[in-house]
Amino acid sequence: MTAYATAAIDSGFTEHLMQLRAAIDGRLDELLPAASNERDLVAAAIRDGALAPGKRMRPLLLLLAADGLGADQCQALDLACAIEMVHAASLILDDMPCMDNAQLRRGKPTVHLTFGEDIAILAAVALLSRAFGVVASIDGLRPLVRTQLVEVLANTIGSQGLVKGQLQDLRDGKYARSEEEIAATNNLKTGVLFSAIMDMAYLLSDAPKPVRGLLQRFAVELGHAVQLFDDLQDINPNSDKDQGKDDGKSTLLALCGEQKVRERLDGHLARAQICLDEAYRGDVYIGRFLRMLFG
Amino acid sequence: MTAYATAAIDSGFTEHLMQLRAAIDGRLDELLPAASNERDLVAAAIRDGALAPGKRMRPLLLLLAADGLGADQCQALDLACAIEMVHAASLILDDMPCMDNAQLRRGKPTVHLTFGEDIAILAAVALLSRAFGVVASIDGLRPLVRTQLVEVLANTIGSQGLVKGQLQDLRDGKYARSEEEIAATNNLKTGVLFSAIMDMAYLLSDAPKPVRGLLQRFAVELGHAVQLFDDLQDINPNSDKDQGKDDGKSTLLALCGEQKVRERLDGHLARAQICLDEAYRGDVYIGRFLRMLFG
Repeated sequence: MTAYATAAIDSGFTEHLMQLRAAIDGRLDELLPAASNERDLVAAAIRDGALAPGKRMRPLLLLLAADGLGADQCQALDLACAIEMVHAASLILDDMPCMDNAQLRRGKPTVHLTFGEDIAILAAVALLSRAFGVVASIDGLRPLVRTQLVEVLANTIGSQGLVKGQLQDLRDGKYARSEEEIAATNNLKTGVLFSAIMDMAYLLSDAPKPVRGLLQRFAVELGHAVQLFDDLQDINPNSDKDQGKDDGKSTLLALCGEQKVRERLDGHLARAQICLDEAYRGDVYIGRFLRMLFG
Repeated sequence: MTAYATAAIDSGFTEHLMQLRAAIDGRLDELLPAASNERDLVAAAIRDGALAPGKRMRPLLLLLAADGLGADQCQALDLACAIEMVHAASLILDDMPCMDNAQLRRGKPTVHLTFGEDIAILAAVALLSRAFGVVASIDGLRPLVRTQLVEVLANTIGSQGLVKGQLQDLRDGKYARSEEEIAATNNLKTGVLFSAIMDMAYLLSDAPKPVRGLLQRFAVELGHAVQLFDDLQDINPNSDKDQGKDDGKSTLLALCGEQKVRERLDGHLARAQICLDEAYRGDVYIGRFLRMLFG
C-alpha cells in the first residue's frame, strides 16, 4: 500500500470501470477473428491470448484519457482494443522459451505451451497486424488522424520502442546496470506504450497543443511507477503475480532496496498527478483510476 | 525452362531492372534503423535479414506494376520497401526452429542461427512495424489512400493471409491433401502478397476501376505459377535454391508429377499474361519481367 492510496474510491466509479471493461471485451471479441473450424489454431491462440481475463489497464487508460478530453468514445474503444491486441502480442512473445520462458500467465498455461511455439508466433503476428488494420479503419475518424495513429503505433512497437525494451531486458538485464540504465529500460518496456496511449487520446481529441506535452510527461511518470510497483509486487507474497519472475534480473529493487523504491514510486505518482491536474483541470476519472491502480 | 521463355530479353530492360534493384536497396537502407551501437543486435539482425542480396522480386513487381499505371515512382519505392520488409520478416520467422527449422537462407546462416531466436523474433516484429509506419507516412500521398494501403497490408499479413498460409503449410503439409487444398494453401502462402502488391499499385494510381479486378486475377495466377516454379526448382540440381527443403511435404509435384506441374505452370502464366494485356494494353515492363522470372 503506497502513501498514494488515501482517496476513497466510490462504488459508482468501480461500476463505471466494470462497464468499460465489458465494452472492451465485447468489442475485442467482435474485432478478433472467430475460429472458422477446429484446425484454425491461430484464431484459437489469438483469442486465448487476447481475451483471457485481465485488468485491461492499458485500454482502460486510453478510454479514460480520451473521455476526459472529449473524444468520441466509439473511436476510442476501437483504439483501446488495438492497444490491447499489441499488449497481448507482446505478452505471448515475451513468454516464449527463447525470451522469458514463462509457464504461467494470469494463472493459465502460456500460449506457446497450449498451442506450440509456431502457433504462438503466428498468433502474435496476426494480433499485431490486426491492431494496425483496426487503427487504419476507425469509423468516422479523419484519414489524416488515422495515419498519425498508425505511425504512433508503429514507432511504439518497433526497434526504438517495445522491441528495444525487450532487447535491453533480455541481453542487459543479467548484468549490473546503473540506476539510469535500469530506468531507461523500464521506460522502453512499459513507458512507450503509455506514451502511445496518451498521444493517441490526444490525437483523437481536439485538445489544445500544450496538453500533448503534459500527457507525455504523465505517461513517462506512469511508466516508471508501473514498473516499480510491479517490482514490489514480485516480492509481495499476497500479490496475484507469478512470484519471483524477475529473479536474477538487475532491477532497481535489487539495487536500491524496498524503502527507496517506495519513495521513488510515490514521487513518480505525485508528478503524474500534477500533469493530470494541469492537462485536465478537474477531477476526472483518469485521476481516480490512477489512485485505484496503485492502491 | 518453360515454354514461356521464348521472348528475348533485351539488355536495356536488364539494365533498368538493375537500376530499380539498386534504388530499392538504397531506400531500404535509409528506411531501416541503423545500429546505434554494437549492442543493438535487433538493428543488425533486421539489416541482415532485409538487406541480404536477393532477387527483390516482390518490390520490383510493385514498381513495375505501379509504373505501368502511371503512379508516382517515389511513392511506389517506399511502398516497395515496405513490401520487402514484410517479406523479410516472414522469411525470418519461417526459418525458425519451431517452423521450417532452416539453417541456410540465400547461402548464409539464417537470422536465428546468427543472432539467436529471441533477436530473430524481435527483428521480425520490428520489420513488420516499420513496414506499417512507412506505408502510413508515404510523402505526398493522400491520407485516405495511405489508410487503405495499411488495411491491405494488415489483411495480407494477418490471420486470413500469410499467417493462415503458414499455419496450413505447417500443420496440414504433412498429411495427404487434395489438389484443391494444396492450391489453396499455395495461394495463401505466396498469392496473397502478390494480390496485395497489385492492389497497392492500383491504389497508388488513378487507373480505372475494372483494372483492379484484372490485376487481382493476374496476382492469383502469378502466385500459383511462382509456387509451382519453386516446387520444380526444388528437384532441379542446377537451381541455386537450398535443395530438398520441401521433402515430406505434400506438394502438387508429389501428387501429380513433373509433367503435369509444368503444364499447369504454363497455363497459369498464359492466363497471367492475358490479364496483363487487358489491364495495361501495351508492351509494358511488367510483362517482360514475368517472362524473365520464369525463363
